[in-house]
Amino acid sequence: MLCGGVGAARFLSGLVRVVDPADVTAIVNVADDETFHGLHVSPDLDTVLYTLAGVVDQTRGWGVRDDTYAVQQALSRLGRDTWFQLGDADLATHIHRTALLREGHPLSDVTARLARALGVATRVLPASDDRQATKVLCDGGWLDFQEWFVHRATRDRVREVRFEGDARPAPGVREAIAAADVIVLAPSNPFVSIGPILAVAGVREAIERAAAPVVAVSPIVGGEALKGPAAAMLESLGHEVSALGVARIYRGLVDVCVVDERDASLARAIADLGIGAVVTRTIMSDRAAKESLARAVLDAASGTVGAAR
Amino acid sequence: MLCGGVGAARFLSGLVRVVDPADVTAIVNVADDETFHGLHVSPDLDTVLYTLAGVVDQTRGWGVRDDTYAVQQALSRLGRDTWFQLGDADLATHIHRTALLREGHPLSDVTARLARALGVATRVLPASDDRQATKVLCDGGWLDFQEWFVHRATRDRVREVRFEGDARPAPGVREAIAAADVIVLAPSNPFVSIGPILAVAGVREAIERAAAPVVAVSPIVGGEALKGPAAAMLESLGHEVSALGVARIYRGLVDVCVVDERDASLARAIADLGIGAVVTRTIMSDRAAKESLARAVLDAASGTVGAAR
Repeated sequence: MLCGGVGAARFLSGLVRVVDPADVTAIVNVADDETFHGLHVSPDLDTVLYTLAGVVDQTRGWGVRDDTYAVQQALSRLGRDTWFQLGDADLATHIHRTALLREGHPLSDVTARLARALGVATRVLPASDDRQATKVLCDGGWLDFQEWFVHRATRDRVREVRFEGDARPAPGVREAIAAADVIVLAPSNPFVSIGPILAVAGVREAIERAAAPVVAVSPIVGGEALKGPAAAMLESLGHEVSALGVARIYRGLVDVCVVDERDASLARAIADLGIGAVVTRTIMSDRAAKESLARAVLDAASGTVGAAR
Repeated sequence: MLCGGVGAARFLSGLVRVVDPADVTAIVNVADDETFHGLHVSPDLDTVLYTLAGVVDQTRGWGVRDDTYAVQQALSRLGRDTWFQLGDADLATHIHRTALLREGHPLSDVTARLARALGVATRVLPASDDRQATKVLCDGGWLDFQEWFVHRATRDRVREVRFEGDARPAPGVREAIAAADVIVLAPSNPFVSIGPILAVAGVREAIERAAAPVVAVSPIVGGEALKGPAAAMLESLGHEVSALGVARIYRGLVDVCVVDERDASLARAIADLGIGAVVTRTIMSDRAAKESLARAVLDAASGTVGAAR
């Protein structure tokens, strides 16, 4: 499964209840990674890890539940910018990660250690051990991702997205894709979550070559993003703001697109793209809904085994 | 004033009540500095800063008052060794310091920024911007200072002390010594607090050349250290465990030694070393006692202006 942050993590938390968690490999976007206070923060990796570990703040979807902010308050008193919220338990993750990275451990190794320490049985891989950085072009110029996403709260319209850094896939990424029974594109932002993973050298090609069916779950329901700026980005980047718009972006890469009941009317147009459309309830409102969506995705995949792309 | 940690900080807190804080320069030992979790910790600098800022944990003498330990608990859950206690507000200092150091700011600049942020008017200088590391030889071999001091709780007898790193004085250190009206050696450990400062290239020579009188405050009272392992080190390193033993170590460097009332009987033997002995109450039990000691030290200095060393 190719994963961004909150949407992907929620989907994963259902998936690992309907299949053995150890049979799942999450390949997670790292182009949102940023250095705050000299510490390496990997928002999507942490959202996935915290969610799978059962310690995530479920209301926000990210960060650690019931976390405190003593360090952040002290950093603020010392004059540091603290617009990126970092709770105390969360900071421990960043301190640990940064210490290990500085000792020379690649991010994939650091992530495996964090997963082990957090009791996560699912294999969580960063898309790359290299530094990859999403930049967005807004009317005022190019912005770093977190500057746009968190500091400026996505209020600037995005005209263009690019990924800096010649990122190579982390160890195991291409192998996991090649060996997969099913490849899932999580209900994440196609531009800034799935996009950077596909931009890692050889990943898109590995998916195209893979024997497994490729299923995308639309992050757009009824013309709106469930979370985050995906809808606004579809619009500002010239796409139709719908599951059909998403399907068009993934054309040539995916076999099946799973869309919400509310978007049932788009199924024919998606099929016309040569992409199977599966209509189900995609809103992950509770545990049962998450598990049901996971089953629907796996069913959609098994229905297309051997499908030609 | 040449400073170690707790004893020096307590003395300073009295001194800055009897003279203008801005007229005081604290030159602080950095050979205890250590990296924990990838963060640069400067225990003596922080003890001095926190004390002068009025935020120190007065019971322990170090760390921030009423600090919490959320990060440390999370680091421990992630499998990190947490024998060196780091509170949350304290960690913010180390995170800030480490970030600034990695941006290329020398420790003296970082320390000045911390002092400003904490509202400390006294000039606090690290003895050196270079990495200097105290090592102690015990029966089991050489140990890093904090390993011996904190992790092994000073239970190993010290046979020898050495300082690694060719440390040069931080900007302002030699100038402050040359321009001083009074030079004070704080009631700190002569071997591992004052010793490493004197081992910084040119510092001992600067003190020897300085016009100002040099006053040492004995950290040993009635044959015991007020805090820390100074008494045990005097013994294991072959010195008399008394204010006289301390005076002998500083012979040739100091004009006056301030000793406690309980050690009045040592005054003559100290005088026989060519060192003036001033007897006063040196136990800093409360604010009045601290101020009184500070005045006694300044009086002792003014009584020796022009004294030949």
